[in-house]
Amino acid sequence: MPFLQELKRVAALLEIRLDQLLKPEPTHSGQARLIEAMRYGVLDGGKRMRPFLLVETARLFGVAEDAAIEAGMALECVHCYSLMHDDLPAMDDDKLRRGRPTAHVAFGEATAILAGDALLTLAFEILSRTSVHQDAKVRVDLIALLARAAGVNGMAGGQALDLAAEGQNTTALEVSRMQAMKTGALFGFACAAGAVLGGADAPARDSLAAYAAALGQAFQLADDLLDAEGDVLAAGKAVAKDAGRGKATLVGLLGIDAARARLAALIDDAEGALALFGDKAATLKEIARFIAARRG
Amino acid sequence: MPFLQELKRVAALLEIRLDQLLKPEPTHSGQARLIEAMRYGVLDGGKRMRPFLLVETARLFGVAEDAAIEAGMALECVHCYSLMHDDLPAMDDDKLRRGRPTAHVAFGEATAILAGDALLTLAFEILSRTSVHQDAKVRVDLIALLARAAGVNGMAGGQALDLAAEGQNTTALEVSRMQAMKTGALFGFACAAGAVLGGADAPARDSLAAYAAALGQAFQLADDLLDAEGDVLAAGKAVAKDAGRGKATLVGLLGIDAARARLAALIDDAEGALALFGDKAATLKEIARFIAARRG
Repeated sequence: MPFLQELKRVAALLEIRLDQLLKPEPTHSGQARLIEAMRYGVLDGGKRMRPFLLVETARLFGVAEDAAIEAGMALECVHCYSLMHDDLPAMDDDKLRRGRPTAHVAFGEATAILAGDALLTLAFEILSRTSVHQDAKVRVDLIALLARAAGVNGMAGGQALDLAAEGQNTTALEVSRMQAMKTGALFGFACAAGAVLGGADAPARDSLAAYAAALGQAFQLADDLLDAEGDVLAAGKAVAKDAGRGKATLVGLLGIDAARARLAALIDDAEGALALFGDKAATLKEIARFIAARRG
Repeated sequence: MPFLQELKRVAALLEIRLDQLLKPEPTHSGQARLIEAMRYGVLDGGKRMRPFLLVETARLFGVAEDAAIEAGMALECVHCYSLMHDDLPAMDDDKLRRGRPTAHVAFGEATAILAGDALLTLAFEILSRTSVHQDAKVRVDLIALLARAAGVNGMAGGQALDLAAEGQNTTALEVSRMQAMKTGALFGFACAAGAVLGGADAPARDSLAAYAAALGQAFQLADDLLDAEGDVLAAGKAVAKDAGRGKATLVGLLGIDAARARLAALIDDAEGALALFGDKAATLKEIARFIAARRG
């Protein structure tokens, strides 16, 4: 199946399961509104790149797609909670995301905060279920990995570095470190989770970790290029906002041409890291090229 | 050991472990500030009633205190994250907690939101560790229980009901349901976790669930009485704020005398639910009486 069709097929399966999982309660109105906000945050028409990465990594090891999609749901809940909280007025104060009002604009700040909290919590509930894997040890390993990827030494820590860097002089090294935590950690989880579900050996795990590290950097660089070269319609959100807000990005520090060259090198690195898997890794390589070429 | 000394002993052990776990990183200033805010939120001189309940429930089944304290740390991280987020301007807008500025007053809103997120995430990381229990199945059961207690059908859902009820006409039944989710769910987790760690049988688990349900209600009623009869110094936070904000409480709906009678009945229920355990449950009974009598 062509790459884009496959990406959409997995996204559709993921959304069916998320929709089932987050059925609104009919009785308690306050709770129904919270669930509505969680649905708004997570059923948002995203490309589902992170769960797709998890599913395709797990496929290398013959893991059943259903199980990988369950784990992907947890990952997407964490990703979407982080968007809801990052968009808040006290954080990045964004009003538009994927062409729609952000959650706090649509539901109010209190509900957006709570819905994010509840999505983060739900992620760990999902990973605790036997539908992810029969072996409790595998589930608890996934939970530990996700908690570390999302926590103070991962995504949340990266967001703290990002907030602290606003308006400061920042080096390319510092920006890279921040992005490795803020964006890279969840890409790392996606690939590590596929490997854990598949019982991968150490060389396979190391190769996937190298692939994920390059991919996460490439994704962020492509995002920054999109912002710098800005097209609001394609991006579905406000653009050129990083510069306006005094946020250092690699594109700002390196210039657009050097950033494009670095992006190409990262894609080479990502593809090279997959040598061990031969032709089985064709889709993972396509993911890398897709990320480099994306326009929205 | 007298009850208050025992409560303080367990709280001190818990705080030593939390202090070790949240050592500030020396290098990245933004991350160090996030860790500082997490420490501020969780090392706050609370009584640690929920972890104490977990430790004392686990003790019924001969569980090593160290392991129960590890699980109690996860519970306290969730409790303290919820306080940080509930205190935010968009939520209850509280400026004072336990006699100190709330986290967003001390660190700013963005850092208070992130620190809460990171504490919630940390709770699941803690429960994934073998220091809680050697058996991965036990750890994953604890994770599932905590996620359900904290999520949309537990604490977060209860907070949503609470927000939705402000300024509305609310019945005693609706207030009880909200409180069972917002406060009761974590008391329920404390007792269920002790039972899971101890490999308790179904009758023991049911007895502890009944005890926790009565105790959670009693705790909330005592809190509401404290607010209504208000003494800022004893409470360490603003009082009479529920009425001022149009929040329905059972004390407001029933009157102080009927609320006191109900509190006494709940303590009887809580003690009665422990009959199965005989003298071994003496400390759990003292917890119930302590909660009913508390003034701060």
